[in-house]
Amino acid sequence: MNFYPGPSKVYHQVKDWLNEAYETDILSIQHRSQKFMDIYESIVKNLQEKHNIPKDYTIVFTSSATECWHILNDSFGSNNFSNINSYHFFNGAFGKKWFDYRKANYPKTTFGIEFGINEELEDNFFQQIPQNDYLPNIICLCQNETSNTTQISQKMLSEIRQNRQNDFIFIDATSSWGGQNLNFNDADAWFTSVQKCFGLPAGLGIMALSPNLIDFYRKNSAVFPTNDIVYNRYNQLSFLIEKANQFQTTYTPNVLNIYLLSKVISFVPSISITSKKIEKRANHLYKFIERNYYHLLITNTKVRSKTVLAIRLMPEGVENIKKKAKKEDIILGNGYGSWKEDTLRIANFPQHTDIEFERLKEFLK
Amino acid sequence: MNFYPGPSKVYHQVKDWLNEAYETDILSIQHRSQKFMDIYESIVKNLQEKHNIPKDYTIVFTSSATECWHILNDSFGSNNFSNINSYHFFNGAFGKKWFDYRKANYPKTTFGIEFGINEELEDNFFQQIPQNDYLPNIICLCQNETSNTTQISQKMLSEIRQNRQNDFIFIDATSSWGGQNLNFNDADAWFTSVQKCFGLPAGLGIMALSPNLIDFYRKNSAVFPTNDIVYNRYNQLSFLIEKANQFQTTYTPNVLNIYLLSKVISFVPSISITSKKIEKRANHLYKFIERNYYHLLITNTKVRSKTVLAIRLMPEGVENIKKKAKKEDIILGNGYGSWKEDTLRIANFPQHTDIEFERLKEFLK
Repeated sequence: MNFYPGPSKVYHQVKDWLNEAYETDILSIQHRSQKFMDIYESIVKNLQEKHNIPKDYTIVFTSSATECWHILNDSFGSNNFSNINSYHFFNGAFGKKWFDYRKANYPKTTFGIEFGINEELEDNFFQQIPQNDYLPNIICLCQNETSNTTQISQKMLSEIRQNRQNDFIFIDATSSWGGQNLNFNDADAWFTSVQKCFGLPAGLGIMALSPNLIDFYRKNSAVFPTNDIVYNRYNQLSFLIEKANQFQTTYTPNVLNIYLLSKVISFVPSISITSKKIEKRANHLYKFIERNYYHLLITNTKVRSKTVLAIRLMPEGVENIKKKAKKEDIILGNGYGSWKEDTLRIANFPQHTDIEFERLKEFLK
Repeated sequence: MNFYPGPSKVYHQVKDWLNEAYETDILSIQHRSQKFMDIYESIVKNLQEKHNIPKDYTIVFTSSATECWHILNDSFGSNNFSNINSYHFFNGAFGKKWFDYRKANYPKTTFGIEFGINEELEDNFFQQIPQNDYLPNIICLCQNETSNTTQISQKMLSEIRQNRQNDFIFIDATSSWGGQNLNFNDADAWFTSVQKCFGLPAGLGIMALSPNLIDFYRKNSAVFPTNDIVYNRYNQLSFLIEKANQFQTTYTPNVLNIYLLSKVISFVPSISITSKKIEKRANHLYKFIERNYYHLLITNTKVRSKTVLAIRLMPEGVENIKKKAKKEDIILGNGYGSWKEDTLRIANFPQHTDIEFERLKEFLK
């Protein structure tokens, strides 16, 4: 039983899907073929239906969520966008990494606002950002910070959207998209990777872009080339969008993982059902953990993640419990970054079953 | 039977390896775990043993050969390397794309030298390049141009290496590494992707870098950071090398494909054996095609690729033969770029069996 928060457990159906992929020659199809485009299109339709992604959002595949950070940083940091300020609100390792990468490349327009792991993002955080009718800002948020198991609530995201109509909001939802019911209208760019809440092997990122953002990009791009003009980069936003509109990618992608994604997204129920289950199980687990005298890393119940939980222990305790768990064939997640030594993380992803959590609870008792 | 020159046929063992990957939980392993590092290390050792890659070369994984173009262009085109000239010799679509990408980003230091598809690269081509003891040039070659089925012979590569001791040679070997016996000492950077001569599903690139190149990069990099310093990009060369030295990657990679690579590279014989077989089969096929009154796209026997062949027909003939082939469950490769309409391409990769070629010949008769 693998409770690592990604790469994590995969759906047990993955085995059959891998065999199907082999038997139906998916492993050999051209990424410019109709068959590939049909698979891509079916994913888009199912994401719209099951995850409520607005129909006018564009779905792009990348190699990872990490690549998405760079695509967004570069697309809205250089050339005609070099006067756009990007404000990064973070309280953990992944939000900070995204900020660090942008700061390293575009130092003059990148601002980091750190908040505490038990602190709720509030409207006054955003009042520091100068608002301007003619020049939008970018607001970067990590909806679910996998490193310290905190989240920004959907309610807060909607408030930010309401209050920052002129700005563009980019959201890293790596460990929540697919597990939580997110309102995609509340941001202009969302991204994730499939080894978390999609229950698939690693090697694929997904990005959803709003029509407003694409429109702004088109209008202000130095070049939004037609087919005749050379693109600067294979993962340049204009090129990614052009190909996504044809249900294609800009280079030979991880076709197998895209196929697996088409299978998993046609297999899972609507996100409202999944999300309710995940939340209920998370709340139950949090209570169970406290009842059994463990400390939780996150004490403020309002900012606790629903998809990843962290138990805080003395470093020796962490080692001890991991060793014991291993004997019972239970893999617990290490801590991350500043919390590497004294926390254990537990993924609560849709592919995990209730029976697995019953066994985990038995073990933790 | 799939003769498309990549994505192409995969080894039939891939089916078992996929099942093994599932059964042994490879799909869920952490990319920082010992298990992952062991897999990575085993690939490096087997590449050294079976493909004769020098032990002091560094092996890096990327998402694709396309990404390798960009990594090399950016690493040796910007910052402290902005005075390094890059000379691109090409006769087809892929060599030109690599050149175009560099030209678009670093126009002042990028030079393209186009040659004919039936022309052999000769020493006098290189005499145009100013040689300089203090400032090396970069020479970019496409050893096997998949788009028009030409190759630069290993003999020529050795000559270029001999004559250009001060320069760095970068070689795109996307559709030949794994099928041809290449002398890796003859260049400083080599790259490929696994859906060609490795017989695997798409989604992984491999790059081999010489110690000379890495040394030059280290000495001249503005920053070759230690762990404490933030890297600019997740696919920055310094970061890739640092992680490769630990048998790790800079981000969550396509672990499944890396596992499949470890299986295929431990399964295949030494490249000298594979290469002889491929060459013999290619020569035989070329003769067969001509004997049956087909035109070959490449008339100069000296520059004909061993791993990809192209038949030239009237556009109607191409359509006709593809339709007929489909009925017999034979997939032939489309033409590419300028040769899209009037050629058919046939992959001659190690994963293709002699029986498949016997059937293809029967069909072509």
